[in-house]
Amino acid sequence: MQFISEKPRFTFEHPLFAVVLANTMLSTVPGISGAGPTPEKTLLTPNLDSELVAKGAITSLPVKPDTPTGCPTPSTITRSMTALTGLVPAFVNAGLVHPPAVPCIDVYGEPGADPRFTDAVPRARELYSRGRLVGEFFSGYSDLLVLGECVPGGTTTALCVLRALGIPARVSSSFVDNPHSRKDEVCTAVLERIGNSVPADPLDVVRAAGDPMIAVAAGICASYRGTVVLAGGTQMLAVAAVLKGLGMPMPDLATTAYVRDDASASFTATCADVGAHAYYVDPDFGDLGHAGLARYCIGEVKEGMGAGGAMLLASLMGHSPIAITGAILDFIRGYG
Amino acid sequence: MQFISEKPRFTFEHPLFAVVLANTMLSTVPGISGAGPTPEKTLLTPNLDSELVAKGAITSLPVKPDTPTGCPTPSTITRSMTALTGLVPAFVNAGLVHPPAVPCIDVYGEPGADPRFTDAVPRARELYSRGRLVGEFFSGYSDLLVLGECVPGGTTTALCVLRALGIPARVSSSFVDNPHSRKDEVCTAVLERIGNSVPADPLDVVRAAGDPMIAVAAGICASYRGTVVLAGGTQMLAVAAVLKGLGMPMPDLATTAYVRDDASASFTATCADVGAHAYYVDPDFGDLGHAGLARYCIGEVKEGMGAGGAMLLASLMGHSPIAITGAILDFIRGYG
Repeated sequence: MQFISEKPRFTFEHPLFAVVLANTMLSTVPGISGAGPTPEKTLLTPNLDSELVAKGAITSLPVKPDTPTGCPTPSTITRSMTALTGLVPAFVNAGLVHPPAVPCIDVYGEPGADPRFTDAVPRARELYSRGRLVGEFFSGYSDLLVLGECVPGGTTTALCVLRALGIPARVSSSFVDNPHSRKDEVCTAVLERIGNSVPADPLDVVRAAGDPMIAVAAGICASYRGTVVLAGGTQMLAVAAVLKGLGMPMPDLATTAYVRDDASASFTATCADVGAHAYYVDPDFGDLGHAGLARYCIGEVKEGMGAGGAMLLASLMGHSPIAITGAILDFIRGYG
Repeated sequence: MQFISEKPRFTFEHPLFAVVLANTMLSTVPGISGAGPTPEKTLLTPNLDSELVAKGAITSLPVKPDTPTGCPTPSTITRSMTALTGLVPAFVNAGLVHPPAVPCIDVYGEPGADPRFTDAVPRARELYSRGRLVGEFFSGYSDLLVLGECVPGGTTTALCVLRALGIPARVSSSFVDNPHSRKDEVCTAVLERIGNSVPADPLDVVRAAGDPMIAVAAGICASYRGTVVLAGGTQMLAVAAVLKGLGMPMPDLATTAYVRDDASASFTATCADVGAHAYYVDPDFGDLGHAGLARYCIGEVKEGMGAGGAMLLASLMGHSPIAITGAILDFIRGYG
């Protein structure tokens, strides 16, 4: 099993790792998101995850960066990689309920509304424009942008956007048993609300059915002048699909082998439908002797906070698979 | 008259230009700030100025970037320089009343309170820490940081901080007739409130008497690993004085010759008291044939939005004085 599925076709000198944070109120609907101990508390996950990545510890609340089932969250992987590489990540606040505990590049958006009942991102077009300004800023200081996301409930909004754009997709989930029926119910309700006449403009689709991350990430990609790697699974496919609909160049994706191998989703097929190319990182978490990490292999968590892209970047910066998994284990043991 | 007072003693390859934005409620006290058509509207000035610099135009409100007396604001100079050099500026939101119209690196602070009546920046220490995180981020992507500010009413909080730190200072103003007596009244009231026993820790001085910009800018400087140039007048001297009190390395300053030559203030003397070195830019605005710019020479506006540092940076990046003043004139004529 090789660590990276193939040698990337790009080169770079000045990489920048960034994560777009957002909430969608869909994550508070029971059964949608596993990214938090209760549906309501999923809203805090981007705040806690960004604090962990930025500072190496969560001090704003007395919680550990584990899932309710004892699985280290993807943010622990991302933190291990930023510490290993010395890269200082940028966080982009696309619309959060709670104020972050660390500085963020804020586009002054709002949390996404529940798209079953109302437009999810009324200011989608403006957020896209502000994302473009962020992409221009990043362009001035880097030639490779690895862009992750943290949006609890975001696979469901991604599903809505992909299907509204005419792409048949099933989506990954951080639950072991992917709650398809619940997500499909939501998606069906959303598509019914916005009618059979789906908007022709992909930003109108995001407005009606998406989340703030999708609008902002698409804007960042649209203006970034270097190489973009979208670091994530289904949610980043939704961003790629929006870019395709806008006639923009298609970025590559990077994610974990656990997303690719999720039989309940359809990542590689959807990737092909969107016309995107993906790199897969296989950190072999099953063989590290850590029960929580091993759960990634049976389909839990799988991805988030750009963890797959962060491992790809560490590898491309010259760190060996052993150094990468060693850094992750050391970090997890440090707080455990 | 030379454009830059002396050749700087630093070199650089990857410059970053950033501006820290904040409000202090002192700017709404009549007679304190000239940075707006009314005292209440001075609160919006950082928002309008950052929009102008980022986008080249103010579209969020039907206003022109001129002072009430028809003088182009310093943000027009800064915009001209970022356009000339191609540098994409970073804005840091240290605490604003109104949400910005452009993306900002937000530390999630609050506007500064009126220090005559209460602690001005209750979270000064936390904002300093968050500024340190911003400085670490900037360090990853640049080796020269030119750091400006936009804080209407900020010369008065700077005066309070400098005097509380034991530095005798008079301060510049964007008014032609510097309202010393009003500022001195405020400063005397503040020093009386915090008592004769001035706090020993400079961050406690900022908490009691400063504004959010001073806390955040000091944090950024404290962690930045390259060369810092504080771009501004008296307000940046307050930042330098805080850094001195914290035992941190002293950054250089850059400002306009109009700040240096302001007989009503004491910039060079205070600079010497603080132990900082300053570069002065003289763009010779009196000889350009523009009545509004010429008013800089008689002591109006003088500095803001890091305009002096932006001109210094453009010069160090190889742009001639004629190219620099030409870019400013072209931009001003474009909106006039």
